[in-house]
Amino acid sequence: MSEKPPRRIPVAVLGATGTVGQKFVRLLAEHPWFELMAVAASEQSAGRVYGEVVRWRETVPLAPRIAAMTVRRSAPPLDTPIVFSALDAGVAGPIEQAFAQAGAVVVTNTRTHRMEDDVPLMIPEINDDHLALLRRQREARAWSGGIVANPNCSTAALVLALAPLHRAFGVEKLFVSTMQAVSGAGYPGVASLDILGNVVPHIGGEEEKIERETCKILGAVETGRVTPASIVLSAHANRVPTVDGHLMTVSVGLGRRVSPAEAIVAMRDFRGSDRVRSLPSSPNPPVEVDERHDRPQPRLDLERGGGMAITVGRVRPCPLLDLRLVLLGHNTIRGAAGAGVQIAELLAAEGLA
Amino acid sequence: MSEKPPRRIPVAVLGATGTVGQKFVRLLAEHPWFELMAVAASEQSAGRVYGEVVRWRETVPLAPRIAAMTVRRSAPPLDTPIVFSALDAGVAGPIEQAFAQAGAVVVTNTRTHRMEDDVPLMIPEINDDHLALLRRQREARAWSGGIVANPNCSTAALVLALAPLHRAFGVEKLFVSTMQAVSGAGYPGVASLDILGNVVPHIGGEEEKIERETCKILGAVETGRVTPASIVLSAHANRVPTVDGHLMTVSVGLGRRVSPAEAIVAMRDFRGSDRVRSLPSSPNPPVEVDERHDRPQPRLDLERGGGMAITVGRVRPCPLLDLRLVLLGHNTIRGAAGAGVQIAELLAAEGLA
Amino acid sequence: MSEKPPRRIPVAVLGATGTVGQKFVRLLAEHPWFELMAVAASEQSAGRVYGEVVRWRETVPLAPRIAAMTVRRSAPPLDTPIVFSALDAGVAGPIEQAFAQAGAVVVTNTRTHRMEDDVPLMIPEINDDHLALLRRQREARAWSGGIVANPNCSTAALVLALAPLHRAFGVEKLFVSTMQAVSGAGYPGVASLDILGNVVPHIGGEEEKIERETCKILGAVETGRVTPASIVLSAHANRVPTVDGHLMTVSVGLGRRVSPAEAIVAMRDFRGSDRVRSLPSSPNPPVEVDERHDRPQPRLDLERGGGMAITVGRVRPCPLLDLRLVLLGHNTIRGAAGAGVQIAELLAAEGLA
Amino acid sequence: MSEKPPRRIPVAVLGATGTVGQKFVRLLAEHPWFELMAVAASEQSAGRVYGEVVRWRETVPLAPRIAAMTVRRSAPPLDTPIVFSALDAGVAGPIEQAFAQAGAVVVTNTRTHRMEDDVPLMIPEINDDHLALLRRQREARAWSGGIVANPNCSTAALVLALAPLHRAFGVEKLFVSTMQAVSGAGYPGVASLDILGNVVPHIGGEEEKIERETCKILGAVETGRVTPASIVLSAHANRVPTVDGHLMTVSVGLGRRVSPAEAIVAMRDFRGSDRVRSLPSSPNPPVEVDERHDRPQPRLDLERGGGMAITVGRVRPCPLLDLRLVLLGHNTIRGAAGAGVQIAELLAAEGLA
Repeated sequence: MSEKPPRRIPVAVLGATGTVGQKFVRLLAEHPWFELMAVAASEQSAGRVYGEVVRWRETVPLAPRIAAMTVRRSAPPLDTPIVFSALDAGVAGPIEQAFAQAGAVVVTNTRTHRMEDDVPLMIPEINDDHLALLRRQREARAWSGGIVANPNCSTAALVLALAPLHRAFGVEKLFVSTMQAVSGAGYPGVASLDILGNVVPHIGGEEEKIERETCKILGAVETGRVTPASIVLSAHANRVPTVDGHLMTVSVGLGRRVSPAEAIVAMRDFRGSDRVRSLPSSPNPPVEVDERHDRPQPRLDLERGGGMAITVGRVRPCPLLDLRLVLLGHNTIRGAAGAGVQIAELLAAEGLA
Repeated sequence: MSEKPPRRIPVAVLGATGTVGQKFVRLLAEHPWFELMAVAASEQSAGRVYGEVVRWRETVPLAPRIAAMTVRRSAPPLDTPIVFSALDAGVAGPIEQAFAQAGAVVVTNTRTHRMEDDVPLMIPEINDDHLALLRRQREARAWSGGIVANPNCSTAALVLALAPLHRAFGVEKLFVSTMQAVSGAGYPGVASLDILGNVVPHIGGEEEKIERETCKILGAVETGRVTPASIVLSAHANRVPTVDGHLMTVSVGLGRRVSPAEAIVAMRDFRGSDRVRSLPSSPNPPVEVDERHDRPQPRLDLERGGGMAITVGRVRPCPLLDLRLVLLGHNTIRGAAGAGVQIAELLAAEGLA
Repeated sequence: MSEKPPRRIPVAVLGATGTVGQKFVRLLAEHPWFELMAVAASEQSAGRVYGEVVRWRETVPLAPRIAAMTVRRSAPPLDTPIVFSALDAGVAGPIEQAFAQAGAVVVTNTRTHRMEDDVPLMIPEINDDHLALLRRQREARAWSGGIVANPNCSTAALVLALAPLHRAFGVEKLFVSTMQAVSGAGYPGVASLDILGNVVPHIGGEEEKIERETCKILGAVETGRVTPASIVLSAHANRVPTVDGHLMTVSVGLGRRVSPAEAIVAMRDFRGSDRVRSLPSSPNPPVEVDERHDRPQPRLDLERGGGMAITVGRVRPCPLLDLRLVLLGHNTIRGAAGAGVQIAELLAAEGLA
Repeated sequence: MSEKPPRRIPVAVLGATGTVGQKFVRLLAEHPWFELMAVAASEQSAGRVYGEVVRWRETVPLAPRIAAMTVRRSAPPLDTPIVFSALDAGVAGPIEQAFAQAGAVVVTNTRTHRMEDDVPLMIPEINDDHLALLRRQREARAWSGGIVANPNCSTAALVLALAPLHRAFGVEKLFVSTMQAVSGAGYPGVASLDILGNVVPHIGGEEEKIERETCKILGAVETGRVTPASIVLSAHANRVPTVDGHLMTVSVGLGRRVSPAEAIVAMRDFRGSDRVRSLPSSPNPPVEVDERHDRPQPRLDLERGGGMAITVGRVRPCPLLDLRLVLLGHNTIRGAAGAGVQIAELLAAEGLA
């Protein structure tokens, strides 16, 4: 464990009534380092009791202490050094900036600021050095707080499998075809008439996010700037009738010919920095390789590492590039709220929040 | 219409109690050229009444005339010039050969003979010239009948989209990631515990079939032999919780840079020979392109051309190869029984059965 | 066939962009008696081209003639003697009344007027004599047109199985537990997160509708008034992850002890009046009894009679009341648009529209 | 807690490779009182390594210690005083009897012996006094061990909701319509083609089991015999496309008119004996009442009490009997392996094993 903060750090959740907001609330309800002090939502919910306005969809019951909270407006001050944002992208921009200016570090699941030059887009095991951007961000924007983002849900899983291959062999080309669960679209999200017994071969903006965010996360930081990785990606995004878990088929082209066995070793041995490994939310290991012939599967393999580990399977040669594989990640934990909590833990461990 | 045979040709179905067998029975029940005269199945069903042994799964009721038939053993003679085979691959080989020797043309959905040198593997719109192999087969094997095969269910859909691109521009490289329905595995096939709310990223032998069969179907026939097309394919096969319809994401590399608009024109204009176009089962057109942003979808687009047309959508540039697209085909019609019936129609029109 | 009208009668559809509205459009596109002349929807769609504003969800392509129509406002005049209403219950009342006053007969799928004293709530095979209410309605409200309603989707299926039992033996008590498809809730309707791999044991207002509407439909008309049938009903409504088709388990108490065989004969022999039987949309027979041990099933039995027949199975003794059975009806055809079209056919045949 | 045994009691699982067998293995892997010493299965698995023959379907990984066990034959001796049976009903009878004769107490999930006069059919919270039958069984059969059964999966959930009502008010009549998950049918069990987007309104033998077992469990023991409760039950059993969890709608007739509020209090206050309450697997409380308008739901409410608590909702008046309600239980935990483990705990606490 990283050094535990001397006392629990107060945190707040923006957009606390949505599906990702609820996941934040659940993960924070008994967090060893953080204490959830405020839940905020839209104007029509503000002032009401959280337990009455939220349509709680988690299988773990809502903690009574949190159920009794009065919902706050999504505006500073909330008097917490860390604010988790699960806001809709349509409104997130100015709200997150206001909190950053008011001195809070905003850890956001929203896409709004992800691709900005001075905003770290983080998977702690991969690019904790990108936190250097936060210092530049504070200077440039004259903020005492700041904004740090976690990636899009499918990107988060993909890049965790790629990082060890990129470090060891250099990833140059990538074909990825996703099969994404409906929880990735929030609530009410995907209409049941659209997805029961069906597949929808389109998710708005998803392919572009995967292509862009992957290169930023795997990029190198120098003098406060990220040079994106030079990977040519071709993404195909699909929605399938599963509840949780994004599964992907991947073909990857590397800097040199690599055997499946070498790739498996690289993925299994992958670890974050010592500091990252000791964070409460960090899974150990972050990448599991399952060599059974028909794994990973969303219904069986999603909960590994508390939803923070990804699972890779079917690593085999690719006739066209170098390797083919399948990977699975939990879209609302590693791909959203769990990622945000882990990033906040890193910020706390680094003394940045 | 091709010239209709002077009287309806007697046909039989082997493996008539299985899911593909039932689809043959349904398609043949009111066929304008063929008359279903015999249904055959395994020893334990032989001698019993078809309507009592079959667990009929089609939504159209079983025709009383056929329900009343006595199930025959799967062995010659069945006294029909055309025999459709929906046998299990484990037993199909010797049975199909016995029928061919006995003078019947066996149109088979089974994988057993597909890759043999002198067996035509056919999509009539694409490679009706491959029928030339049948003449060589008869000579070499001293058969008066013969064996003609339809491709694997996912290959059938894929190759229909590729053929127009291959003709016009030359297909050189291909990624395909499939999302296949459970009916492709027969009955009982996939256990519900394996697939409800789940995806299984493995279908035994499927990737190899796609890679091999595609090149044979798109190959050129010269002097009675097929030279396979030189396409490098990388296939990823997945089972998803849909009932019917195989959906695929595809990235394709062509002989030259081609715009989506050019590719769409090529696919929309694609037609089989005049003879093929006039067969009763031939859809017109065989390839439909739907330009709506989230199509094709199995639940909405599967019945086009009576299940014999495939639908292509989302034709767009690929960062890695040339084009990306999505395609959908009906796995038990174009990918199995409907394909067999269409091939038999071609044989009849050609005077080969 | 009832006497075909000398020329096709112009009709319009209100709420034409919703799921029931689309089903009306599909059923009317090639109707032998009716000609679809106008599609109407909400203010924001009015004036735009139907094919562009509708998110067409039917598996049959939208007819180009209709796709090209300009969407009208949902207000008179639309210049058609018959208007089909698939409006939301929240707005239907005044709009339907305005059309009735303006001289159109409104055949409505909306619940708004169903339980009004002078509004016929109709299943033509069961209660075509209830049309007598229409005359009283016109007098009382000084309308030249009028309003006629079809029942709620689950009630429509249930009451078709009950009517023959009620006629022959008298239905006194009823327990019904439904398993209803998501299409019954319209689009977007049920969120996929609520229903994938789940059952929701509640549908707002459904149990009350079943209890009330069943008694009205099976009631007797005297001097222009309906005396509801005296049946004590206990309904349990559930939403299950099926796309189309409402399945129900039923226990029924009759006026006397009745054997399953007698009940089956009564249901199989059930027919509407000669006039009703000859309507284009009337299935023959309206009630099918399937004696296989595990039928009816939504996926296999829904399309009987073009979706207008219901299927009954598992007729067996009930330890508590008299008989137990299972029944299945198509909720958007017999339970909505198909029912409306059939009622309009009856109105045309009766010279009432 | 009941007094913990001085040391962990060795136990074995018969039928350990099936779905219920796997659930036993998972629940026993870290049990505070029991130590899993042997896994047994069919002849073809015996002698092989468990981790290699089992197709592990639990989401928690198989413990390496157990994975390494050599599978034993399902025959005595296995040298454990308690044996859990998840055998197929077709073979269970003689095997279970052989173990009982050899001195083991067999806690069985199989239906074979459930309705025998001297076999306790147990839900510990309800009828721990039925253990008296075990003494009579040992005498009559001259066994040093014995057989104790847990009920059928849907009965287990139903009877837990009924027991408090029966104690407080007397249950006289009952309608129950079930919506049961596919895991209740084992593996491979229900074919996906039968259940995807479908409901099957028949489960072989289920309705009879519910009707018989409910009366035995709620019956009174006198002088070593059970007098079944006099409840008239009418059951309708259905299979729906959910993975785990049996949901049921119930109408119940009581000895007197009871308000929903009274019934809710009775169910919420229901507890087993002090000894039963302190068993490691006993949930507290065993019956949860959720007053939200659309609960319980399988996907959200199944894990309460570790899968050992049932959830009741929508308690409201019934027009036909007295009360209507909905209930949900976990079919493979409370309805199978969890029930068996809890019974074995009771046996241990009572010094009977």
